[in-house]
Amino acid sequence: MAKPTPLSGFPEWLPGEQLIEQQFLDRIRRTFELHGFTPIETRAVEPLDQLLRKGETSKEVYLLRRLQAAADGAAGAAGAAAADGAAGAAGAADAEQLGLHFDLTVPFARYVLENAGKLQFPFRRYQIQKVWRGERPQEGRYREFRQAHIDVVDRDTLAVHYDYELPIVAAEALAGLPIPAVVIHTSNRKLAQGFYQGLGIADPPAVLRIVDKLDKIGPARVVAELVDAVGLTDAQAKACLALAEIATDDASFADAVRRLGVDDPLLDEGLAELSAVMDAASALAPGLLKADLSIARGLDYYTGTVYEAKMRGFEKAGTVVAGGRYDNLAESGADRFPGTGISIGVSRILGLLFGAGVLSVSRQVPACVLVAVVAEERRAESDAVAAALRRRGIATEVAPAAARYGRQIRHADRRVIPYVWFPGEPGAPGEVKDIRSGDQAAADPATWEPPAEDRDPRVQGADPAG
Amino acid sequence: MAKPTPLSGFPEWLPGEQLIEQQFLDRIRRTFELHGFTPIETRAVEPLDQLLRKGETSKEVYLLRRLQAAADGAAGAAGAAAADGAAGAAGAADAEQLGLHFDLTVPFARYVLENAGKLQFPFRRYQIQKVWRGERPQEGRYREFRQAHIDVVDRDTLAVHYDYELPIVAAEALAGLPIPAVVIHTSNRKLAQGFYQGLGIADPPAVLRIVDKLDKIGPARVVAELVDAVGLTDAQAKACLALAEIATDDASFADAVRRLGVDDPLLDEGLAELSAVMDAASALAPGLLKADLSIARGLDYYTGTVYEAKMRGFEKAGTVVAGGRYDNLAESGADRFPGTGISIGVSRILGLLFGAGVLSVSRQVPACVLVAVVAEERRAESDAVAAALRRRGIATEVAPAAARYGRQIRHADRRVIPYVWFPGEPGAPGEVKDIRSGDQAAADPATWEPPAEDRDPRVQGADPAG
Repeated sequence: MAKPTPLSGFPEWLPGEQLIEQQFLDRIRRTFELHGFTPIETRAVEPLDQLLRKGETSKEVYLLRRLQAAADGAAGAAGAAAADGAAGAAGAADAEQLGLHFDLTVPFARYVLENAGKLQFPFRRYQIQKVWRGERPQEGRYREFRQAHIDVVDRDTLAVHYDYELPIVAAEALAGLPIPAVVIHTSNRKLAQGFYQGLGIADPPAVLRIVDKLDKIGPARVVAELVDAVGLTDAQAKACLALAEIATDDASFADAVRRLGVDDPLLDEGLAELSAVMDAASALAPGLLKADLSIARGLDYYTGTVYEAKMRGFEKAGTVVAGGRYDNLAESGADRFPGTGISIGVSRILGLLFGAGVLSVSRQVPACVLVAVVAEERRAESDAVAAALRRRGIATEVAPAAARYGRQIRHADRRVIPYVWFPGEPGAPGEVKDIRSGDQAAADPATWEPPAEDRDPRVQGADPAG
Repeated sequence: MAKPTPLSGFPEWLPGEQLIEQQFLDRIRRTFELHGFTPIETRAVEPLDQLLRKGETSKEVYLLRRLQAAADGAAGAAGAAAADGAAGAAGAADAEQLGLHFDLTVPFARYVLENAGKLQFPFRRYQIQKVWRGERPQEGRYREFRQAHIDVVDRDTLAVHYDYELPIVAAEALAGLPIPAVVIHTSNRKLAQGFYQGLGIADPPAVLRIVDKLDKIGPARVVAELVDAVGLTDAQAKACLALAEIATDDASFADAVRRLGVDDPLLDEGLAELSAVMDAASALAPGLLKADLSIARGLDYYTGTVYEAKMRGFEKAGTVVAGGRYDNLAESGADRFPGTGISIGVSRILGLLFGAGVLSVSRQVPACVLVAVVAEERRAESDAVAAALRRRGIATEVAPAAARYGRQIRHADRRVIPYVWFPGEPGAPGEVKDIRSGDQAAADPATWEPPAEDRDPRVQGADPAG
């Protein structure tokens, strides 16, 4: 076959990069678990009506079709499938159109409704999975990428303290990684919607969509579009812009909003919620959250607090953390499960940092030791040394062939494995060599310890904060 | 919306079950890393020609289609997409039909060819991902499931010692889990094919397909089908059956084969390879591998050693570990990368054991401690206690609301969180209560330690070996 080429939008890492992602995921997951979030996973597919039920037509869904579905149909028609009792059921299942999930919030809401009787509320879960979006290929847009999500859902009502707890957990997870700083910008849907209503604007969602483009198109074009496309008066448009330009590191944004002289009960509610979030966050994690009233997050399913964050130095590359409160996503009959969640865009963060060449790992494989093989018929001796090291948690590989020692050392060197172990003659001790310094000494595989910093591959960032 | 219902073939676990899977995966991954396997992941999709190039028509592939692909086409025709420079490229990308991968071997072979210049050979990788098969729904068949795979590929030739190393690693990973025993049955493709050739049989693959059904249809029907469907003589059919009935715990199978009086160079090669594997495995890990000449593993891409294992007590449920050597899967021009691999069917193992109710976990959430909240306006005190515990690696949740203490304790009890922490009055120490025993004592969040067995959720199997 011809040499395969990458598929645009479907990133794959080289082994060293994958080791870095693995350590990132371990750290993120550990932080989530320390905060009492429990893991769940949902299937990759959802029925199409689930995926589209919040009007998510802007998210490009991948539909699934069984390659052999047509063949089954033909066989069924010819009666050839009569022996297969499941054929009818298969046909029915195929009739329900399935698509790959495009986020982890919609599937989670479905999971909560489906399993409500078996879950304890409030339910805190984390979910780290890939999602798919059938985007047109363009610079920096992934069609497959991994998100690390935390959410809390409760029955009937959900306390406001989760609105500040979740971004703090996400920030704590990121703070442990060797990456540039991430400041989480937050706003509140009720605040913006109430403000627009208070101004007498008939179509708040249309305003929000245009204001959302503020940092792309600039203030002058925002005002022009609000007037031209939504039909606002010049005064209304300028007030909407003034609101979007408010950004503070504490709860003082509320005074700035009040000075704009708009009154509305929903605006009051939004101001109170965002003030509570900012007050608590300023006390618990100063500098982490910024009130930024330009944050809109589309209009999908969010109903209150919303979050959005970029990575310092990579602002143009877009959002790497996002989320918000969704009070109405999981509802069935009289059952209502309001939720709030935040998501770390793991693939996007890694893609940006790999692209900039600012992450490195101390070696390309997990092995800390390579055990040399004296002669192919004596491989069992090397296997025994490796087994003894592994029993004490030291990752160890045995040389692929009983080649000249120089060649076996080169095998380690190419992978940056720091130690090569030479088994002794029967009855004699072996020796271990640090191939960086050349130091070599007799050693017993039952007791030898590498320095702690050599045990596992170490990830480093170019950022001095790392 | 109506309450959602499960999709047949797409398993999802409840939170306690997911905690169990997570611990299984951690253990498996740790074993792989101790043996020097490095992680990689491949995208979920492959071009359809890749998925089908080894004649894999029996694997039911899910094809992908962008929901908006048709809309794009229409827009392009009307010229409305002229501003989008990528529209042409998107059309081209859509023209290449993509499908979800049905295993992790075909994508790995593609990854090796694509990245050969950047990999070090022999290349040892592990890969733990979900795969998808568009099966007709039937009892116990999954359409989405997770495999944990290890493979070694080398350039040009691959040493035979990997053929025994890999099943030993897989068995070591499983031996650490609280599951019933798994004995890996092994055979060799060359052995069977050489034997059939030596008998003068024209279509060895047809024979293999029928012999593969031995434990389903029994010896009499195997002989009958070989005569009726493949046209073998009665003597040929009985010799094929006799070969398939050979099973030994060591290399003595070779004598039994020889006694059947068939000669063929490929048979000799297969006998030598399987003997080498059995000799080494008997020495390194007695009782782990069984030579079983009924093992066939379809005819897909395997060329030498093949493996297949069932779980004790769940033999009828089929294979939970499988793999083998594929000398010709990754080839491009003059480049050839023979490989060997083995795969643990994680979802299948868990599905069987969850179904039988033989796995349990000590609690339903990661949290070891619930910190009570004295009053909503004093939540920050509880947050501070939780932060101190988390800094020392103790997973901690803060109570959702400042309810009566009895209600807060019930929140912990329902999740089987063992400890509830009561913050003290300002200046006074807090107290921690073991809600199982009722014991309560003053404690400092900067120094208090739970017993080691309470730190993390513990998984237990009903099998006394666990």
